[in-house]
Amino acid sequence: MGVRRLALTPPEAAGRRWVVDQMRALDLAVRVDRIGNVYAHRRGLRPELAPVLIGSHIDSVATAGIFDGCLGVLGGLEVIRALDEAGVETVRPIEVAFFSEEEGARFGTDMLGSAVATGRIPLEQAYALIDRGGVSVREALEAIGFLGEAPELLDPPHAYLEVHIEQGPTLAARGLELGVVTGVQAISWRELQLTGKSAHAGTTPTELRCDAGLVAAQIAVEVRRMATSGEFRDLRGTVGVLRPHPGLVNVIPGRCDMTVDLRSPDDAALEAAEAHISAFVERVAAEEKVALESRQTARTATVRFDERLQERIASAADQAGLRYERLVSGAGHDAQEMASICPSAMIFVPGENEGISHNPRELSTPEQCAAGVSVLLEVALGLAQEEDA
Amino acid sequence: MGVRRLALTPPEAAGRRWVVDQMRALDLAVRVDRIGNVYAHRRGLRPELAPVLIGSHIDSVATAGIFDGCLGVLGGLEVIRALDEAGVETVRPIEVAFFSEEEGARFGTDMLGSAVATGRIPLEQAYALIDRGGVSVREALEAIGFLGEAPELLDPPHAYLEVHIEQGPTLAARGLELGVVTGVQAISWRELQLTGKSAHAGTTPTELRCDAGLVAAQIAVEVRRMATSGEFRDLRGTVGVLRPHPGLVNVIPGRCDMTVDLRSPDDAALEAAEAHISAFVERVAAEEKVALESRQTARTATVRFDERLQERIASAADQAGLRYERLVSGAGHDAQEMASICPSAMIFVPGENEGISHNPRELSTPEQCAAGVSVLLEVALGLAQEEDA
Repeated sequence: MGVRRLALTPPEAAGRRWVVDQMRALDLAVRVDRIGNVYAHRRGLRPELAPVLIGSHIDSVATAGIFDGCLGVLGGLEVIRALDEAGVETVRPIEVAFFSEEEGARFGTDMLGSAVATGRIPLEQAYALIDRGGVSVREALEAIGFLGEAPELLDPPHAYLEVHIEQGPTLAARGLELGVVTGVQAISWRELQLTGKSAHAGTTPTELRCDAGLVAAQIAVEVRRMATSGEFRDLRGTVGVLRPHPGLVNVIPGRCDMTVDLRSPDDAALEAAEAHISAFVERVAAEEKVALESRQTARTATVRFDERLQERIASAADQAGLRYERLVSGAGHDAQEMASICPSAMIFVPGENEGISHNPRELSTPEQCAAGVSVLLEVALGLAQEEDA
Repeated sequence: MGVRRLALTPPEAAGRRWVVDQMRALDLAVRVDRIGNVYAHRRGLRPELAPVLIGSHIDSVATAGIFDGCLGVLGGLEVIRALDEAGVETVRPIEVAFFSEEEGARFGTDMLGSAVATGRIPLEQAYALIDRGGVSVREALEAIGFLGEAPELLDPPHAYLEVHIEQGPTLAARGLELGVVTGVQAISWRELQLTGKSAHAGTTPTELRCDAGLVAAQIAVEVRRMATSGEFRDLRGTVGVLRPHPGLVNVIPGRCDMTVDLRSPDDAALEAAEAHISAFVERVAAEEKVALESRQTARTATVRFDERLQERIASAADQAGLRYERLVSGAGHDAQEMASICPSAMIFVPGENEGISHNPRELSTPEQCAAGVSVLLEVALGLAQEEDA
């Protein structure tokens, strides 16, 4: 089942209104902030204490499945419903939030709403971002009626919890029911432009070639070698773009554009990998007499989730008899923004079809979703009963 | 200086008429055959003997230089002019020809005119070829007024000689003034479709990837290794097409189309190289769990030019004090078709700008051209004075 719910579009606004109706039906106090983040507040016995915040997002990429983001938001509301049904009152308030434009699929900056809420991206800068049609974030918020009045800067919650689908194959491949997320890996993106010389594939001797496509292929092979050698620990490396020009069977590529995506849960290992591939690229380009331009297009450091929260998630999973492991998130999430202002952690739910995501085939079973949300309930409840800061 | 003179178009017809005028000005008897090949005949003292044929082509690719083909045709007319000016009569007739659609750039089949003249391609099959606009060869010949009446099948000449630019960097790189062409290398083209699994570059562990782009890169690197290892003698290998899909920085390529162009002056070495790369492709595809479809899109065996003619060219070059070497042609030429019906050989002239061709920067100096044509004159004259078959 597929959806297309790009941030701050009419279909996403319909989703927002539906979720807000669910929140109100649970008697929650709903507030919308100035970047369109929506918070639903359940009272605590001591309202002056910082709340436990549960969140995620409901926007999607252009060809999405139905679980990415929504699981964490609706899972949060399910926690509220369970507490209500059991007649449980908590010391601290509990809030359930969804953040604007987590995907970055419309305005180009991912984790936008949570980054504004935690102060990493200033509100005015966020407002000024435009989509491909020239519509700004502020105009889009106004158009859908979600330009709220609540302050965009969030008072630090007591803790932040997010349930999310894994979006990868690891948990299912290992027969696991849950993942305790230890953090988000560091990311390094680089664009390379290689310039050699186009020449005739039949008449040009090997030693006189300046084959930009060959250099790109050597780099792609080295990136995989680095990922499997153990030399850079748990490095992941991907060459997704590789475009030789002119792209004809009998013409030696005179130019080649490519990208290198390196990720690691270890900042030092990623730095070492970046240094290694840079030196490798320079060496093979020089050997082939190919000129090189290189540009870093993204770079983020690792984020580590709170150890105590990880322990609580693991212990709740143990009590529920769930098979789980700790793992690092390969993708970015709102939780990595929240981690800068409060103890944060994530619970991963396995995905069928080898964890395919950003695709209508994205699927987690009701049992898999329920396991993740049960653990969320357990951990959120424990945190909400803590009197101390 | 660039030209665009696609076969049997109005610009090429203008070129044909200009060359025919040159031929008539030299008092040659011009005949046009049924595939539009044009032959200019200079009488011999013994008209019953088979003529010495000098030829090449005047059609061009879409973005061509001015030397490719024309040098051989106008060089042939220069030989006639030199003989006339010196008052030399020859025992055998000498003919100068230009063949239709050598490039294959309009109707998709290269060496078309010479292949029809030597019987490899039947006339009706050649007539039926169409260009992108649906115009047939026959219609195009009629439209430009070059659908001749002379029989298309050529009576075997005494010998065939062709002067051509090298279209590669070898002669210039070695400081040579002439190349004695030993033959045309064998060519093998293959198209590969690799199908793996598109997946998230961040969340998919290395050991669970089926990266079609990586397999393509491994093949490209192996093709170069084969060309430099010595294992397959003078193999040339090129990967000109390599298209990973979807081609996004953070998506593992789930599909990749590519081509492999292998060439060798040694048929056995090319067969060994084909077998080696096929086995390599199957192995690396299986290792990455990538499915493979493979299709041979071109395959020709080597052509060897006549040894005795090569000797005569070398000896004429020696007498003229020219620095020369023997080399294999990397590209196809009309001479390889003629070689099937008579002793044939080619003389290569070096090119400036690293031998760039099919490009307006294509350039051979007047001195380089004159050296090649002087040797052509010497060899053609010797052959035209031979009484024996």
